[in-house]
Amino acid sequence: MSTLSISKRGSEMPESPIRKLVPYAEAAKARGIKVHHLNIGQPDIETPPAILDAVKHMHLKVLEYSHSAGNESYRKKLVQYYKRNHIEVKPEEILITTGGSEAILFGFMACLDPGDEVIIPEPFYANYNGFAIEAGAKVIPITSSIESGFALPPIKDFEKLITPRTKAIIICNPNNPTGYLYSREEMETLKEIVLKHNLYLFSDEAYREFCYEGTHYSAMLLKDAEENVVLMDTISKRYSACGARIGAFVTHNKLVIQTALKLAQARLSPPGLAQILGEAATDLPVDYFDGTRAEYKKRRDTLVSRLNAMEGVFCPNPGGAFYAMAKLPIDDAEKFCQWLLEDFSHKDQTLMMAPAPGFYATKYLGKNEVRLAYVLNVQDIEAAMDCLEVALKQYPGKQL
Amino acid sequence: MSTLSISKRGSEMPESPIRKLVPYAEAAKARGIKVHHLNIGQPDIETPPAILDAVKHMHLKVLEYSHSAGNESYRKKLVQYYKRNHIEVKPEEILITTGGSEAILFGFMACLDPGDEVIIPEPFYANYNGFAIEAGAKVIPITSSIESGFALPPIKDFEKLITPRTKAIIICNPNNPTGYLYSREEMETLKEIVLKHNLYLFSDEAYREFCYEGTHYSAMLLKDAEENVVLMDTISKRYSACGARIGAFVTHNKLVIQTALKLAQARLSPPGLAQILGEAATDLPVDYFDGTRAEYKKRRDTLVSRLNAMEGVFCPNPGGAFYAMAKLPIDDAEKFCQWLLEDFSHKDQTLMMAPAPGFYATKYLGKNEVRLAYVLNVQDIEAAMDCLEVALKQYPGKQL
Repeated sequence: MSTLSISKRGSEMPESPIRKLVPYAEAAKARGIKVHHLNIGQPDIETPPAILDAVKHMHLKVLEYSHSAGNESYRKKLVQYYKRNHIEVKPEEILITTGGSEAILFGFMACLDPGDEVIIPEPFYANYNGFAIEAGAKVIPITSSIESGFALPPIKDFEKLITPRTKAIIICNPNNPTGYLYSREEMETLKEIVLKHNLYLFSDEAYREFCYEGTHYSAMLLKDAEENVVLMDTISKRYSACGARIGAFVTHNKLVIQTALKLAQARLSPPGLAQILGEAATDLPVDYFDGTRAEYKKRRDTLVSRLNAMEGVFCPNPGGAFYAMAKLPIDDAEKFCQWLLEDFSHKDQTLMMAPAPGFYATKYLGKNEVRLAYVLNVQDIEAAMDCLEVALKQYPGKQL
Repeated sequence: MSTLSISKRGSEMPESPIRKLVPYAEAAKARGIKVHHLNIGQPDIETPPAILDAVKHMHLKVLEYSHSAGNESYRKKLVQYYKRNHIEVKPEEILITTGGSEAILFGFMACLDPGDEVIIPEPFYANYNGFAIEAGAKVIPITSSIESGFALPPIKDFEKLITPRTKAIIICNPNNPTGYLYSREEMETLKEIVLKHNLYLFSDEAYREFCYEGTHYSAMLLKDAEENVVLMDTISKRYSACGARIGAFVTHNKLVIQTALKLAQARLSPPGLAQILGEAATDLPVDYFDGTRAEYKKRRDTLVSRLNAMEGVFCPNPGGAFYAMAKLPIDDAEKFCQWLLEDFSHKDQTLMMAPAPGFYATKYLGKNEVRLAYVLNVQDIEAAMDCLEVALKQYPGKQL
């Protein structure tokens, strides 16, 4: 007889690693402490009023299901958006998804069976774990090091990990949590691996526009790897519209997109109101990103130079996205981040960061690293860095 | 070495059964034929302007992620909505989901492992198949018959199907595709089964307000089955807001809701703009449903009486939702539905219906049955029934 139990998959699903610290942050606020949130990728940048206005001025009598692949008008506009980014795709090679999250889930579900393996350079976006567990797939981490600035590990390290069950490599470019921007050469290396071993290359390009050093080289540009590459995209960070939940699943591989479409049909359609907003975003002036990019660069420069000026701290300069990983002279990042919220304040302020172990699949890695999201204005970043500087002097678990 | 293939799960995912007929409908329209769409559950009822206005008048600068469980203000309002429906729940027993679809997926993912079995009275909502395949679960159909009006099969039929792998029973009440409204006695029977065999009872109550005979008896009202019952809900049909993609996952079972919350965290948050709309819907006047219910009842009465007046046609009177299943004097519903679009017209009109085999898991069942969604106004339903009446006389595959 069966018992009333949850699924093995359900019990294996990780809790949000950041969530554990939330009660401590709430308690700090209750004590009157201002908490600078550098822990999550929720930008403070305004959502462009023009795209909110598109929703406010909508004309519809019935909010009907859209096509399961998303509105055709929107997919046609996205073709133009990608063209401006030198990526050639057709409307039928695009599925509008419920956030980038659903695009990732569709990729895992369409391409990986239970027991199949996906190689991911670590540290990586923690939710890849959840989607892998939902699909029954196994995450095989390949470690990139803070000393190299989180560059792509050498090809021989990948080849050591490839087994008959390996089906895909997933990268995030520019990277969350490291901010690393893969070079064209590194992308060509990945192409070589996926072609040689017949693997999918899932490319999460959520932060495409946020590159401060060098140019973004999309996986969609890799010649001869058209069948291998699946682009997972989202408007969340691009237009500071995280709550909209609009993304895209893009591939030239016909069988993969047909399979993802069946997954899309099961859930009927992506969010309708947010598709109006997403479509309007494709009409924003081309120079829209200049402003946000300049703002993020200024924040990055402030954050990174302040960090590296602290004794025993090392923060490689991230080429893109809006994250930085820093190595701190501490015993344990989780303890330190909790201590910052529970036992520390400086001028009635403190800061919240994401302990790095949540981004590593290999145990004990990242123990003295943290991720900082530079989603606050320069003044607040300065104040947060003042706190960190003082904290590192006071922290009992200091290790130089 | 692995090959670049899609997953087994992906290849098993069913195509939308209705989709196959779409090219024929498009071709008919291209020939100037008006097609009456009785094939899908997309109501023509206006989305209440007040809830669209709530979105149009939103005040926000940054469209941020919401809580993964959905906005607390909305969950608190839903508590009141459920209270008006005699269902007592707390805000922390509710997760806002991306449509009812995601609530169903969360239930399957949280409670069923690959190889586990879920019993479903057939005919059933075809997308349950897709969600079961995504979770690796096996659908075990239990046949309800058109002769009995699709009443719940007897308890002994259920017990014959229960194995050590059985984890859940899923019902849709009132039912899509049959329109059947389960009685309180039938709900108590289900309770008896799930308590005796320690199963989950997933209750899809998307059409709760659309009951024309008798009263809806929610699975959430079943005493002593609080740990077993998971309510899967949606605003799609209730407020004619299918495109919003807002639903709810509701249960008193703490472990199940904690597990579903982890699935919710992986995808970050439900659609933000649509949550504004959903929350506004909880403020609609209590008599809002009187109008839509009266309209659907009029349509149902027209449809059912017209169908039963045709020679050789039998349509049990559905107690709820906005679907009816009819047995027709034909050889093959798929052929007939295609013929209606391809080879038939009456006064330059025809109708599109959903062939019933797509709603049965048991092969060869429903071969001479169709599902009709009464989502059109009475005049169009009359015109569609005129077409069907003439068509049944002309159809070469007629079988009396």
